[in-house]
Amino acid sequence: MHIQTHATESGQDLYPADRLHTAREAAARAGLDALLISPGADLRYLTGYDAKPLERLTCLVLPVDGYPFLLVPALEEPAAQASPAGGLDMEITGWNETDDPYAVIAARLPSSVARVGVDNHMWAEKTTAFHAALPGARQELAGSVLSGLRMRKTPQEAGALRRAGEAIDRVHARMGEWLRAGRTEREVGRDIADAIIAEGHVRVDFVIVGSGPNSASPHHELSDRVIQPGDPVVVDIGGTTQDGYCSDSTRVYAVGEPPEEFRQLHDVLLHAQIAQTDAVRPGLTAEQLDAVGRDIIADAGYGEYFIHRTGHGIGLESHEEPYIVSGNRLPLEPGMAFSVEPGIYLPHRYGARIEDIVICTEDGGDRLNRTGRYLVVLP
Amino acid sequence: MHIQTHATESGQDLYPADRLHTAREAAARAGLDALLISPGADLRYLTGYDAKPLERLTCLVLPVDGYPFLLVPALEEPAAQASPAGGLDMEITGWNETDDPYAVIAARLPSSVARVGVDNHMWAEKTTAFHAALPGARQELAGSVLSGLRMRKTPQEAGALRRAGEAIDRVHARMGEWLRAGRTEREVGRDIADAIIAEGHVRVDFVIVGSGPNSASPHHELSDRVIQPGDPVVVDIGGTTQDGYCSDSTRVYAVGEPPEEFRQLHDVLLHAQIAQTDAVRPGLTAEQLDAVGRDIIADAGYGEYFIHRTGHGIGLESHEEPYIVSGNRLPLEPGMAFSVEPGIYLPHRYGARIEDIVICTEDGGDRLNRTGRYLVVLP
Repeated sequence: MHIQTHATESGQDLYPADRLHTAREAAARAGLDALLISPGADLRYLTGYDAKPLERLTCLVLPVDGYPFLLVPALEEPAAQASPAGGLDMEITGWNETDDPYAVIAARLPSSVARVGVDNHMWAEKTTAFHAALPGARQELAGSVLSGLRMRKTPQEAGALRRAGEAIDRVHARMGEWLRAGRTEREVGRDIADAIIAEGHVRVDFVIVGSGPNSASPHHELSDRVIQPGDPVVVDIGGTTQDGYCSDSTRVYAVGEPPEEFRQLHDVLLHAQIAQTDAVRPGLTAEQLDAVGRDIIADAGYGEYFIHRTGHGIGLESHEEPYIVSGNRLPLEPGMAFSVEPGIYLPHRYGARIEDIVICTEDGGDRLNRTGRYLVVLP
Repeated sequence: MHIQTHATESGQDLYPADRLHTAREAAARAGLDALLISPGADLRYLTGYDAKPLERLTCLVLPVDGYPFLLVPALEEPAAQASPAGGLDMEITGWNETDDPYAVIAARLPSSVARVGVDNHMWAEKTTAFHAALPGARQELAGSVLSGLRMRKTPQEAGALRRAGEAIDRVHARMGEWLRAGRTEREVGRDIADAIIAEGHVRVDFVIVGSGPNSASPHHELSDRVIQPGDPVVVDIGGTTQDGYCSDSTRVYAVGEPPEEFRQLHDVLLHAQIAQTDAVRPGLTAEQLDAVGRDIIADAGYGEYFIHRTGHGIGLESHEEPYIVSGNRLPLEPGMAFSVEPGIYLPHRYGARIEDIVICTEDGGDRLNRTGRYLVVLP
């Protein structure tokens, strides 16, 4: 949820004023007449406004012909004006409790509007209300226009992701303070959550502490299991910084000496993950990058135990395009940022996953997480 | 976000097994062929599963003819099985990374499906994918079926809301520990957020500390303003308990003796809020309840300064139906739970809002927040 317990700042370089223009041009090229953007990462990307998702409509209206405007509930107008959106050359209008905001927007759009791009995360109740208010407009997904922009990070965005990576690295570096036999995953997780905030995030997005057999379940979160001597422990953690950008990094720990077979499994995984992060370069497709790790893991006999994709894009959302998955033929380009996180999971025994965020550069890839990828054996 | 740092338990009485049946019958009466429910309050209400909103599809499919099933990303299957949903007489199926989950669902629904009810909060990218997978099915809102069920709380739900109310009351009762002149709103807000967790919530939903002129902005959150002697301070706070139910209560404080005119304003507001909480009874419409307070405030000359609706429903969401607003002719019924929170805001000077959660009973209303509603003057 949106708890503004840290100061937020504008950051004009992170949210440059020309994005509305760029998005409008991209919408025009796609044949859309307008974009309708609701609270979330797209709205923040375009305007810098970190709006709350509410039952009351907040909507950025970006007509291809005409001026953009931001319609917000009257109660939210001060917050919208105080956000970076208030510094844009754009009208911000509040609607009152008994107004129909959909009718307000319909009245301001040209009657010729035939195709609108709605925010990919807009709620069905809001797209339905727009259907009623704009019965002649076919709804498509604004993501077809915006994800191409958001995928290619500016140097300023890359810097924000780098700072997020450093913040989560500081948490991993402190793991020995909390992770030991005799404590529950939940106790350790609570300490990690506190440290995620203390080390430079404004929000904890997820805390996975998978110990012993729980390490074999990739999306296990926290349980009351007491960590045992010799347990492998997968720690996958991430948060959102004040800038709005996300961190996400996984490291594998053992609390005391783990089974020898687990070391072998981890060695295979580390080999695969290093090969994948080293392989990142422009022109390689997302599915080719996925295959680099999958082949190594399969050759070592663990193929059936790598049960998820290699990774996901990251930026203003923890998970966004590009997805590093079989079937995605998108060629990597400089500025694309994504996780590289192969895993091997032996059901009911143990598992491991190693994850870095990588940005594709002109001639390779840049890892934003720099803590050691080896198996960290804690006392 | 979803941080499971506290244990979650099933709570069969909160999430009874007959809800799927009840919802299916309601869908049939509405002429729908199936409901498609994505992560959020509706899914939790129907199955007890507190699923994460992900780019990967999680969907409860509830056909009017046939058996319900829950399709989840394979990685989430253990979590879904471990949730109360695992105890229902319902298949839970995982889909793999390269499957098309929309096609999986389309293949399992009868080809005659003509009208489906989609979750009100389903993302546009998911409704769009369902449009493609089920081109013959007209999409309507599942809320037309479900909000009527969710609005009428069971005694067990009322109990969960009562416990949430007691938890937030304990935070208000401790306000003197944190709220004093010389501290910033943000510093006070951080302490309140910690106390919201400590006193019995698993998530902080919002923390508003509006001091001095900031009290005049109803949705002000936190700023770096230093609280001054004599400041009125509006504190509006809420969280979510382990059960999934929400709290929300507003009290008005002053840090040292406030201006005499502010006391007069607060007296009017208190009179209006007491009249409204006393007026709650079955048969009164939502807009009539709104008018009870609005008339008192208008008669005292503050009519133009009560700039928002009286309240919102509350349950598994902080804001849900019924909305207590002009134009809503819904008659109140026993079991409906909502906020009663009139406010008076003098721009750039100060404002006040008093808020309790009230449940409509057979013969009146039951306030779930019990801290004193008077103006609390702190030293």
